[in-house]
Amino acid sequence: MFDDLARKYEQELFERVIPFWMRHSVDPEHGGFFTCLDREGRLYDDRKYMWLNGRQVWMLSKLYNEVEPRAEWLDAAGRAVAFLRRHGRDAQGRCYFSLTREGLPVFYQRKPYGAVFLMIGLLEYAHATGDAALKAEAIALFQDIRRWIADPILMGRPALRGGVPVSQLADVMVISSMALELAAKTPDPQWQGVMRWAIGQAFRHFEPGHGILIENVAPDGALLKHLPEGRLCSPGHVTEVCWFLLDMLEHLPNPQLTARTLAILENTLEYGWDREYGGLHYFLDIEDRPLFQLEWNMKLWWVHVEAIYAVIRAWKLTGEAKWSAWLERLDDYTFSHFPDPEFGEWFGYLNRDGSVSHSLKGNHYKGCFHIPRALLLSSKALRKPIPTI
Amino acid sequence: MFDDLARKYEQELFERVIPFWMRHSVDPEHGGFFTCLDREGRLYDDRKYMWLNGRQVWMLSKLYNEVEPRAEWLDAAGRAVAFLRRHGRDAQGRCYFSLTREGLPVFYQRKPYGAVFLMIGLLEYAHATGDAALKAEAIALFQDIRRWIADPILMGRPALRGGVPVSQLADVMVISSMALELAAKTPDPQWQGVMRWAIGQAFRHFEPGHGILIENVAPDGALLKHLPEGRLCSPGHVTEVCWFLLDMLEHLPNPQLTARTLAILENTLEYGWDREYGGLHYFLDIEDRPLFQLEWNMKLWWVHVEAIYAVIRAWKLTGEAKWSAWLERLDDYTFSHFPDPEFGEWFGYLNRDGSVSHSLKGNHYKGCFHIPRALLLSSKALRKPIPTI
Repeated sequence: MFDDLARKYEQELFERVIPFWMRHSVDPEHGGFFTCLDREGRLYDDRKYMWLNGRQVWMLSKLYNEVEPRAEWLDAAGRAVAFLRRHGRDAQGRCYFSLTREGLPVFYQRKPYGAVFLMIGLLEYAHATGDAALKAEAIALFQDIRRWIADPILMGRPALRGGVPVSQLADVMVISSMALELAAKTPDPQWQGVMRWAIGQAFRHFEPGHGILIENVAPDGALLKHLPEGRLCSPGHVTEVCWFLLDMLEHLPNPQLTARTLAILENTLEYGWDREYGGLHYFLDIEDRPLFQLEWNMKLWWVHVEAIYAVIRAWKLTGEAKWSAWLERLDDYTFSHFPDPEFGEWFGYLNRDGSVSHSLKGNHYKGCFHIPRALLLSSKALRKPIPTI
Repeated sequence: MFDDLARKYEQELFERVIPFWMRHSVDPEHGGFFTCLDREGRLYDDRKYMWLNGRQVWMLSKLYNEVEPRAEWLDAAGRAVAFLRRHGRDAQGRCYFSLTREGLPVFYQRKPYGAVFLMIGLLEYAHATGDAALKAEAIALFQDIRRWIADPILMGRPALRGGVPVSQLADVMVISSMALELAAKTPDPQWQGVMRWAIGQAFRHFEPGHGILIENVAPDGALLKHLPEGRLCSPGHVTEVCWFLLDMLEHLPNPQLTARTLAILENTLEYGWDREYGGLHYFLDIEDRPLFQLEWNMKLWWVHVEAIYAVIRAWKLTGEAKWSAWLERLDDYTFSHFPDPEFGEWFGYLNRDGSVSHSLKGNHYKGCFHIPRALLLSSKALRKPIPTI
């Protein structure tokens, strides 16, 4: 069964997902990637979005590094790296959110995520080419990002007197993810220190009522249940952070924290699963109060693939039947709703009932990242021999 | 039939809508209005949102000025005015987006709309109390807003080299709305000049393919169809701008432009109507390309009440049967989906099929404004004798 599933994921990845992006997203003229592609792969906006450009550089370089050194992958990544390094950052080194096709800045988002995905892209590409200077550039960008997250004023967000200091799970996640990437590429004990911090901070997001993690808590972990953002759970984020935690706990083994992570993963799946229509909810309020998010009841592609990989990790780690049951349920929902057999790649956005609400294959937040990453990591994990306990 | 409908709207307004807000939204302690109210009127976030505070000041003052001088309306509006004047603006006079219950600033949005609604609120309240200094303050704020819209850098939006200069329909709308309010309260010929500009600019948003208005065009009216925002139509915005146009054309009569406005209104209703489930769409792409907006297929309260009032205006103006048919269709959909007979006020957000997606009565964008304004203006228009032609 492990092998069958691995084969299915590899086929999807190499026959239907990556070919879609290689065929439609590469800009042969200016470098970089288009991501606003409709169902058939036709462009509906030729601007370049930084989150997704950094992510696609990472993905193609990762395939080159870990699957097969295909020149077309490295070449597309390299031309994007040149484009992003030339155009992607402002005078203070901060990353734009979007650029014109040619590279002029269009929009600056007061968030660190454009820089985060550029950083992991540069690092993975530098590994592929053995470029030490580029690796150093990625590490310096990581240090910038940590400063920006610690002090959002540097990103242009004024600190207002009525603002409540919060720890955002998204920030803990990107720091975890970057530390894992850095530890894999550069042998430096400082990344363990970052991971130790990230593990501690992730568990500060624990919400004991449901046994899950929530999006926003006070920096010391105090719950902020009087605020909508303090009651917000994003089941997709939690499943993703769970596998980041399992990865970090391989660097810093701690059986108790591994057990807690698995409990959180299970609780989140139980809590986040839509018992009426199937699939995982996008957002929930832990007290069932109204949500600001108009899209709370939609079903999103990334939520489901992140859950699949997290569950595979849990299953391989424990061998427990409950995880194979969850995997079957998630795999079944995901593969019967998201992939587009006709034109390749996957639909990203469904209504609550599972019908497709947007037939696009990419936009300013959906690109060549969550699906291929989860398919690659999942197939690799499935093929890995179970360690003898 | 006119009278029956007017009576229905008045009943809804005075028995179910305004009482809900007077009962649940007034902060007796600090002044200002809560708007994050759940189905039953219970608070789920006690912060004060500036758009909606300004709007509620306007609405209650308007009821005081035009329906009945009820002390409770003026008192609640006045205590909000004091709160907003004390806490609502930063050192440069710009308006925050949200404040704590006590008045500390929480979030600053780089848009002019918080200020717009404060301006009309101050003006209407100043009219109720005869406060000339406050009226002058409102007029000065209007001049600030025009500067901010003309030069978004003043609101903190950097002008980036790849940005495309656009005329936003929302900006034309708020300038129209403020000019109409100013002309009603202060006899100054300069407001006619503003209206002349706004009428001209609104028609620059004309999209000949569908005969409608679209959200974003180049400042000279050139279409920007290569960009998603240049293909975006918000049928609710168009119906609202149509009645602003009809109002402005009473100040600046022009039968040809009135006829064009009515044609745009009809085209927009035909184009925006969901033939599968009924109701008006929230967003559409004029070339049926993918939309960025995840919520495009939802049905929103304000879209429907603005359409009702626009159609009543058209009907009273022309007496044509097509308008009474549209009114019946809109009124039928609206009253069978949005009002909550159990707890008062209306649901705001429906899924495409008309089922309620959020049971809240208010949030950071829904407050005491579109519904009571449309019910009040509609009932007054319906009761107005038809002019003999």
